[in-house]
Amino acid sequence: MKAEIIAVGTELLLGQVVNTNATFLSEELAALGFEVYYQTVVGDNPARLEELLQLAETRSQLIVLCGGLGPTDDDLTRDVVAKHVKEALITDEEAMAKIEQHINRAGHPMTANNRRQALSIEHGRVIQNPNGLAAGTLYQNDQASFLLLPGPPGELIPMFRQNARPLLAELLPQQELLSSRVMRFFGIGESRLVTELADLIEGQTNPTIAPYAQPNEVTLRLTAKAATEAEAQTMLDHIEHQVMLTVGDYFYGYGDDNSLVAETVKELRAVGLTVTSAESLTAGLFQSTLGSVPGVSEVYKGGFITYSNQAKQDLLGIPAELIAKHGAVSREVAMAMAEEARLAMDSDYSISFTGVAGPDELEGHPAGTVWIGVASKDSGVYAKLFQFNRDRQYIRHSAVMAGLDLLRKQILGEKLQ
Amino acid sequence: MKAEIIAVGTELLLGQVVNTNATFLSEELAALGFEVYYQTVVGDNPARLEELLQLAETRSQLIVLCGGLGPTDDDLTRDVVAKHVKEALITDEEAMAKIEQHINRAGHPMTANNRRQALSIEHGRVIQNPNGLAAGTLYQNDQASFLLLPGPPGELIPMFRQNARPLLAELLPQQELLSSRVMRFFGIGESRLVTELADLIEGQTNPTIAPYAQPNEVTLRLTAKAATEAEAQTMLDHIEHQVMLTVGDYFYGYGDDNSLVAETVKELRAVGLTVTSAESLTAGLFQSTLGSVPGVSEVYKGGFITYSNQAKQDLLGIPAELIAKHGAVSREVAMAMAEEARLAMDSDYSISFTGVAGPDELEGHPAGTVWIGVASKDSGVYAKLFQFNRDRQYIRHSAVMAGLDLLRKQILGEKLQ
Repeated sequence: MKAEIIAVGTELLLGQVVNTNATFLSEELAALGFEVYYQTVVGDNPARLEELLQLAETRSQLIVLCGGLGPTDDDLTRDVVAKHVKEALITDEEAMAKIEQHINRAGHPMTANNRRQALSIEHGRVIQNPNGLAAGTLYQNDQASFLLLPGPPGELIPMFRQNARPLLAELLPQQELLSSRVMRFFGIGESRLVTELADLIEGQTNPTIAPYAQPNEVTLRLTAKAATEAEAQTMLDHIEHQVMLTVGDYFYGYGDDNSLVAETVKELRAVGLTVTSAESLTAGLFQSTLGSVPGVSEVYKGGFITYSNQAKQDLLGIPAELIAKHGAVSREVAMAMAEEARLAMDSDYSISFTGVAGPDELEGHPAGTVWIGVASKDSGVYAKLFQFNRDRQYIRHSAVMAGLDLLRKQILGEKLQ
Repeated sequence: MKAEIIAVGTELLLGQVVNTNATFLSEELAALGFEVYYQTVVGDNPARLEELLQLAETRSQLIVLCGGLGPTDDDLTRDVVAKHVKEALITDEEAMAKIEQHINRAGHPMTANNRRQALSIEHGRVIQNPNGLAAGTLYQNDQASFLLLPGPPGELIPMFRQNARPLLAELLPQQELLSSRVMRFFGIGESRLVTELADLIEGQTNPTIAPYAQPNEVTLRLTAKAATEAEAQTMLDHIEHQVMLTVGDYFYGYGDDNSLVAETVKELRAVGLTVTSAESLTAGLFQSTLGSVPGVSEVYKGGFITYSNQAKQDLLGIPAELIAKHGAVSREVAMAMAEEARLAMDSDYSISFTGVAGPDELEGHPAGTVWIGVASKDSGVYAKLFQFNRDRQYIRHSAVMAGLDLLRKQILGEKLQ
């Protein structure tokens, strides 16, 4: 069933507020099984909203409106929709009682504007607001269903989840269910991933495969339509298997809220081993990324930021001659940094970073040249050269992600031995 | 002049991504003097995008499209717009050279998809992408102007500010010139700033004052319309003076591309003094923020991340008894961390962080409790207690911003003495 979302509010068109309601509602509607084809923002203007309603009902069976249910004069959504469907506005007694109670408590006089928030559309179903005063409505006619929700996310979210979602589920044909799985990849760009999977993606209508690029990683969302959850899972397992045959080397984990660092910390915790780091160009970005994961204190105790050559000598005891001979951006210095930090912190693993963040070159190396050292208590030390590009921040972020990848592979590799 | 924004991307309709581009563009367009009447999101579907273009050009003179310029087959914006305006797609040599350089560096083979990113619409103006590979276009015909921008905010924002905004300004009636000035504030929330400046903001039509909240800071964009640049600057000076009378205590700098860390590093470089840090809950985020500024190596040599109590003892020589007596989250430990790090690195300033990032409490302190220590070669050591809120990442970011603010005030204060 096709759906669209209309957010009403001039503040959105002025860029004062981010339209997170559309994101929330889109995700919820997709999970229910609606196909959301449009999100639109329109200002507090009756004529433009009416035009949009006329358009929307030609292309969608469900029109979700958010915003414009408040007490002020520019809150016009319920008036415009009621006029559009040729119905009256009626006062809902439950909502009105809540408003009266609120006004009495606050000791303010009741105004006509306060009373407006208890209005809903005649012949519609009132939707109570668990977290505010404005009542919502679900109104259905032969054209479409209209769901009216308040604008503040703190009201809209609980109202949707508790009171609107069950009513919407009833609108849907009950034979089909949608189930999604997100696969995450590191070390392969979006365009290459899509090229490698071209046959699979193009041939697929159910499940669908949707790639999405984020900085330094790519996700694939697999979505299956089926009669039961078990059937959907079998379909997802099957398509996942085909994806893995082609690009499995780059796969690292599942889920929207996952990340390479979360997976790496999970692996470390699983094996009960610790990590430290010595960072030059990244200046703490690797360790602060580790620090973003709750519970990291079990596997990470601290480390070093040795931005200058002097700091490499003073904090880690790297010999000045080694730096003079090979340069700070070298395999030798990367290996020494990793091993000295590991010994100083008495940790199982250590990752080091030395390179050129840019924009200027250093020691004759262009921006983006980065050596990453990996020291392991059991398997010794090595370093790997990378050439990243784009700007300073992207280079630093790329180095951190590559460091996490090396660490994760080291843990997995040692587990396999 | 009426404008509308069309964001193209199925990921937006699935609720996987928040449409912050619409917010950013709305604010920028309003500041330039465009009236934004609609924001729409449509999926990666040529027919629906074409329908929307037909509708948009009946109601808007400027249509800004974002997203769908990437390398994959579902990146269809430039194809659909070119077909809509009956023009060919042509390869831009500058963009193509950049893609070739990128592909060569990465050592991947060039694919047809990579080449697509260099395409722009014939008879349009190519807009180069300072932070990515996809070229944009500004195309004008008798119906409307079409601006094509990439979807990733990290590309869209610099591309808009550096290369698109000046071209859009030329579209506006030329009898009047628009000049903007961005003022940046730390330590005051958006709602309080707006409340304090309510009379000024409401009474103002020229210059306009537009507030914009970012994480842990607020900016005000002052925009004057005038016949000459000199006249506009005089108007901006006047309104800035009035703003400063009310909220000047929180002002720290000018400009869209500025930041508290850039201003702080600039101050350090101006006085030729150095800084180090010892970080517990922030785990390197303060130093990595310093490291984001090019040229920071003049004033920052390195420092410590002492996440565990043992690391505080081992790396900084904090006595175990001091931690046992006062707790790791204490004024005493914050001061000792700052001073020991300063001495170890022989730097002029040192900032320390010890506190509770959450989600769990620590030593009986709730998440968000943070002591920040400030050590100065000339003025001794002190520490200040903060209570931040929201989630783990926001607490860590808030602590870093507060640390930068304390450092900047320390430098400015000592300069005044």
